[in-house]
Amino acid sequence: MPSVPTALALALSETAHAVEGVLDRLLPKSEFPENKLFEAMRYATLNGGKRLRPFLLMSSARIFGVSDACALRAAAAVECVHCYSLVHDDLPAMDNSDLRRGIPTAHKKFDEATAVLAGDALLTVAFEILSDPRTHEDPQVRCRLVSALAKASGMNGMVGGQMLDLIAETTQLDIGAITRLQRMKTGELIAVSTEAGAILGKASAQHTNALRAYAHDLGLAFQIVDDLLDAEGTEEETGKPVGRDAEAGKATFVTILGAERARSQAVLLSEQAVNHLSVFEGRAKQLEDVARFVVDRKK
Amino acid sequence: MPSVPTALALALSETAHAVEGVLDRLLPKSEFPENKLFEAMRYATLNGGKRLRPFLLMSSARIFGVSDACALRAAAAVECVHCYSLVHDDLPAMDNSDLRRGIPTAHKKFDEATAVLAGDALLTVAFEILSDPRTHEDPQVRCRLVSALAKASGMNGMVGGQMLDLIAETTQLDIGAITRLQRMKTGELIAVSTEAGAILGKASAQHTNALRAYAHDLGLAFQIVDDLLDAEGTEEETGKPVGRDAEAGKATFVTILGAERARSQAVLLSEQAVNHLSVFEGRAKQLEDVARFVVDRKK
Repeated sequence: MPSVPTALALALSETAHAVEGVLDRLLPKSEFPENKLFEAMRYATLNGGKRLRPFLLMSSARIFGVSDACALRAAAAVECVHCYSLVHDDLPAMDNSDLRRGIPTAHKKFDEATAVLAGDALLTVAFEILSDPRTHEDPQVRCRLVSALAKASGMNGMVGGQMLDLIAETTQLDIGAITRLQRMKTGELIAVSTEAGAILGKASAQHTNALRAYAHDLGLAFQIVDDLLDAEGTEEETGKPVGRDAEAGKATFVTILGAERARSQAVLLSEQAVNHLSVFEGRAKQLEDVARFVVDRKK
Repeated sequence: MPSVPTALALALSETAHAVEGVLDRLLPKSEFPENKLFEAMRYATLNGGKRLRPFLLMSSARIFGVSDACALRAAAAVECVHCYSLVHDDLPAMDNSDLRRGIPTAHKKFDEATAVLAGDALLTVAFEILSDPRTHEDPQVRCRLVSALAKASGMNGMVGGQMLDLIAETTQLDIGAITRLQRMKTGELIAVSTEAGAILGKASAQHTNALRAYAHDLGLAFQIVDDLLDAEGTEEETGKPVGRDAEAGKATFVTILGAERARSQAVLLSEQAVNHLSVFEGRAKQLEDVARFVVDRKK
């Protein structure tokens, strides 16, 4: 019998493969001169990545017996939003990153204008995918997906968090402000990925709330580990520049708590996340495994 | 009795005022540090503009007896998308414009990173608004609005058109390619504004198609006049830099057809647009007036 990490690794790679197949179909090449836009969208989405958000969505959807075909479309939509945010965050005016997952970022591979537009188009297509009847036959469900994704990724979610992150470069934030920043910048999209499975499965309020609480703790644990990797990892391991937070004098969980306390905080949050899943009586095994994996990951 | 242009001017300004009231409520200031993002979103949306797209949407919705409260929300969503596209198009990496409607563009007023994020957040909030039950009680209608707006503004619509526009700076396009570029870049959003009224009013296929044909011709006429204003207008009249197409050696309707033929083409398209409205037997008077206004405008 394979150990838990091996089983999880297999499941993660299966989902990654499946969602990449859906993205490949949803973002085709174009025969028109604007194909450069399509190439950039594909470049930004089809170049690896853990596909953590799709995996959370698929794992959550399976608890409620949602068909993989529907869940994969919703997962592709969430991944489009995640990838658009990376493309825009990497821009010279933002984080000015040249490398992502070990290869040139979109604006280095193409150019800045194309990167801006590819990000815009990826964000837009996410809502096109969710509003399509092939994602779910019930329009009420599709509307709830659109609404939840828009809220999680907009001014009160991911984009607001990114704005805060820029402000953090010149203002010293305390632990409360950092926690809020990270909940918005990465936590909300992780939460909506998990919640989308419940929306697709028309889950009860009790189940939806349990998943939301799980995702909230998971997202924070994930971010703390991200900060630890930036402080302690190597560019070779992570596939992106490291040590940039310290260089920029930016407050992170690690600079405020110290590496040791940050790590035990991440472990605690991961355990807490697993506890929220007890309501599913063992039917959320994959989500439990993810929570453990997130604190052990090396990139 | 006021002349047609005066009546239209009044109606346009009434709608502009109403949609600005809705935008003001939907894009509030924030008490959190990320308020800069909210300020930039408000700056980009609440600084005038003709509000042509909201007016088309409201005029179309009224044909079918849609309540102004619902139509105004949809109009605000479309305007958010229009304004986001202006913010991103003005960026240094794109058109590099310092002036818009006579005042500094968003990245000049704030900074580039904030402008990118404000654009992203405006695009996102458009879908949040459309998916909200307050926009329409029927989720099927809301899904159709989301889908139509996403298609019109994404890779096969506005963003694809903007990509083509960038390509046009280095490639000589023929009249067919320019027409396709403009249909995508500005025509699709104008078309979806008009179509949204029909979607909200659950209009028949015949009526929806008539509005689509109207908007198609109107959008092209609008763009030809835009090119004429860029070639012949002054910065004082238009509130933005002029003569930039010629400077960039870019093919436009005016450089290909010449000013005279371009103008008569615009007039012809405007008349054709009005003809498509005959199916409404006089109930689409405002839309008729818009078609005439669009070719007479000075900015």
